[in-house]
Amino acid sequence: MNVLLDLCVVPIGVGISVSKYIAACERIINEAGLKHEMHMYGTNIEGEWDDVMAAVKKCHQVVHEMGAPRISTTIRLGTRVDKTQTMEDKLKSVKKKLSNNVSD
Amino acid sequence: MNVLLDLCVVPIGVGISVSKYIAACERIINEAGLKHEMHMYGTNIEGEWDDVMAAVKKCHQVVHEMGAPRISTTIRLGTRVDKTQTMEDKLKSVKKKLSNNVSD
Amino acid sequence: MNVLLDLCVVPIGVGISVSKYIAACERIINEAGLKHEMHMYGTNIEGEWDDVMAAVKKCHQVVHEMGAPRISTTIRLGTRVDKTQTMEDKLKSVKKKLSNNVSD
Amino acid sequence: MNVLLDLCVVPIGVGISVSKYIAACERIINEAGLKHEMHMYGTNIEGEWDDVMAAVKKCHQVVHEMGAPRISTTIRLGTRVDKTQTMEDKLKSVKKKLSNNVSD
Repeated sequence: MNVLLDLCVVPIGVGISVSKYIAACERIINEAGLKHEMHMYGTNIEGEWDDVMAAVKKCHQVVHEMGAPRISTTIRLGTRVDKTQTMEDKLKSVKKKLSNNVSD
Repeated sequence: MNVLLDLCVVPIGVGISVSKYIAACERIINEAGLKHEMHMYGTNIEGEWDDVMAAVKKCHQVVHEMGAPRISTTIRLGTRVDKTQTMEDKLKSVKKKLSNNVSD
Repeated sequence: MNVLLDLCVVPIGVGISVSKYIAACERIINEAGLKHEMHMYGTNIEGEWDDVMAAVKKCHQVVHEMGAPRISTTIRLGTRVDKTQTMEDKLKSVKKKLSNNVSD
Repeated sequence: MNVLLDLCVVPIGVGISVSKYIAACERIINEAGLKHEMHMYGTNIEGEWDDVMAAVKKCHQVVHEMGAPRISTTIRLGTRVDKTQTMEDKLKSVKKKLSNNVSD
């Protein structure tokens, strides 16, 4: 089962700057060989369910090891069985409608 | 690693009423032996990371088998290593402050 | 436009215990006269869009005034125009299917 | 109060393809003059709280007018009072740590 996932990890109890923890998560996702793309409020990830979820778990483990006593993460995740849809497909579909000015 | 998770599964492409799919997820979580509590916009679940995530995966598999071609799920999940905190602990902590009218 | 909303406010940069901030939000929502119900990972709120959103904004303002330099909030929100649905309706619909053991 | 918001609108009851509704939301956000950037699972938006929230409300109104009987939206939103942080700042902060290979 392929999944498109959007991950936002928020370490709590380590002060106001959290970017080094987010950078660590980026490295984990990258080393897992998963297709991914960071944005301003999370990271898009694409891959097999088990591979993606293993990377999410490793993010929690590593961020705790780095010293964060508490983590609050939010995830959006989509699966579909009618067709295979990549991250690019999903964006392209909206952008096509925007450029064609199709509103209905 | 213990996790407190809040799960909201949204089946897409099956019309406007989705309660039978949510009921199926409730059964899956219950049969997994996980502590859980449904609310108006999701379900609180408590348990070991792998057990909870296995239940989330099974929800997607079963909802697809029931006929939903597409699913968009949102998850909040919290882990902490400073202490063990149950679902009840978390609520109690806020309720105590409310009843004591402690505002600072 | 009526809205069913699920609010989770996470103050950042105030240490590991955040319950007093959550309690402050509960008071704000309560004083706004909105129907609401706290759960382990957020608070369900029901009301007119503008009233609910005004309460969410006030939560951010007050939590900042209490000393939190940074807040990361997550919201689920549902609207529908086919019928009026309360928090109770939504839960009842799933619970009925669970008790009847209706799986299709 | 400036806000960084991540918006994901999911129309329900209109079948499996939802890209025309997402495109409509993109137009609304664009016409509101808000800085924004679409990604695979939502749209980053930056602006004054009231302006951003007015755009979110208009998205719901327009998507209902286009025929969606039900909408389930998820939002992440961040505010901070210690400094002004733009969408670019937030990304740059993580990317700098990644390129410097700073892990602690």
